Amino acid sequence: MPEAWTRGGKPAADLRPPPGESPIIVLVRPQLAENIGAVARAMANGGLFHLRLVAPRDGWPQDRAWRTASGADPILDAARVFPDTPSAVADCHRVLATCPRPRHIVIPVRTARAAAEDLREINGRGLRTAVLFGPERAGLENDDVACADTLVRYPLNPEHMSLNLAQAVMILAYEWWTATEPTPPRRLQTNETTVATKGQLEGFLGRLVAELDAAGFLDPPPKRPGMVRNLRHWFERGEVTEQELRTLHGVVTELSRGRMRRGRPDEG
Amino acid sequence: MPEAWTRGGKPAADLRPPPGESPIIVLVRPQLAENIGAVARAMANGGLFHLRLVAPRDGWPQDRAWRTASGADPILDAARVFPDTPSAVADCHRVLATCPRPRHIVIPVRTARAAAEDLREINGRGLRTAVLFGPERAGLENDDVACADTLVRYPLNPEHMSLNLAQAVMILAYEWWTATEPTPPRRLQTNETTVATKGQLEGFLGRLVAELDAAGFLDPPPKRPGMVRNLRHWFERGEVTEQELRTLHGVVTELSRGRMRRGRPDEG
Repeated sequence: MPEAWTRGGKPAADLRPPPGESPIIVLVRPQLAENIGAVARAMANGGLFHLRLVAPRDGWPQDRAWRTASGADPILDAARVFPDTPSAVADCHRVLATCPRPRHIVIPVRTARAAAEDLREINGRGLRTAVLFGPERAGLENDDVACADTLVRYPLNPEHMSLNLAQAVMILAYEWWTATEPTPPRRLQTNETTVATKGQLEGFLGRLVAELDAAGFLDPPPKRPGMVRNLRHWFERGEVTEQELRTLHGVVTELSRGRMRRGRPDEG
Repeated sequence: MPEAWTRGGKPAADLRPPPGESPIIVLVRPQLAENIGAVARAMANGGLFHLRLVAPRDGWPQDRAWRTASGADPILDAARVFPDTPSAVADCHRVLATCPRPRHIVIPVRTARAAAEDLREINGRGLRTAVLFGPERAGLENDDVACADTLVRYPLNPEHMSLNLAQAVMILAYEWWTATEPTPPRRLQTNETTVATKGQLEGFLGRLVAELDAAGFLDPPPKRPGMVRNLRHWFERGEVTEQELRTLHGVVTELSRGRMRRGRPDEG
């Protein structure tokens, strides 16, 4: 087997990522081509591009991988194949290994989130990083882990740790993307309209209370202050938008009209 | 179709989760049974148990789901089937919908991480929650989203947002588990041994420098302080364990013995 080759037929050296660009995902002795394709899809979801395969069981390339990649073909086209783990990481400055089982070694351990933060930091210094994922059934062997300087352990349900290969890559890719994602964790999607001011809300509440007073809904007088407060709290609880306030004004107008009609049956 | 039934043949009401236990995953019109099984596996990974299916395309149960569940059979055994989304969430107090596309509605939006934190908080108040996931190709329809009070949007690569159904559930389940996971993000796995004190490290460094002095490695004298500092910085950089220090002492002993032998060739 040549040192490294790709299906695209490009010289493998051209596909070596610039140091610091993004971590290389290394699948060590993967068994199912479908899983390799699903891994490429997960990588694309999380903004990763560089894939290396160590001795894939059924050889490479395999059409079945492309069929499960859901459009992440460029990742598979550029995937490089290596005969063993040391050669797959020889040009990397830092190597992380995903490994759910305790091993009798002295090594730094990171959660997936901390690993992603560290990878951002290390790549930011212009170094080339790789993350090893073991074969589907057995996981990484001790000799593979010996190529790594850091272990990654996902915090997950200890009663059911068995993680699909693409799921394992998905979580790392998701954390890699999230580590610099500026999306605010919580927001109100308001589309074309904006959140109403307290003054606009007050204008609506005043009108509603006046209509309810006219309809006799807020009788008897001793209960009126509490009933108004309860209504007010309900309307204050969410951020009402200007558009919603306009709709609510329309609802009050329409319902009031009905009451006025009922109050004057001769108008029919 | 009955209101709700399960493959296990247990009365469906017995399988209704106690309010506040953990979120219910609702797959709306899922297409592939393999994906339903993969979803169950991801749920188990993240400590979720309650699965509801709205009008699965190929009916239910499907053996293919159990084949991809990788041991998460109890989740599938207890899955409940509903004819439509409103009936699937009728007993829930809060409903979140995963939805990658912008919609022309006014609704709170959460990242997956914030959604998981919110779910922990809401469930902690004893309320029953559900999270909707749409069918593989099309995603949730507007009428499904109208059953939800909050949208969940994953921050992921906008160039490649198409997420496998089980991957989407995996990320939420992972965040659900991580939201209360006490694993420290960074640690050094030391197994049986403990990190050496600075005094123990100093004991080793003193001995190493003495041996190097004896060997003449630290000549000429003007360069000696800088060379010692460089060596010291390298050994100080990581947290050396007591066991590793013992090994290093042995290495120095062994190498020194070689030097002494070479110094006295007549001992051959």
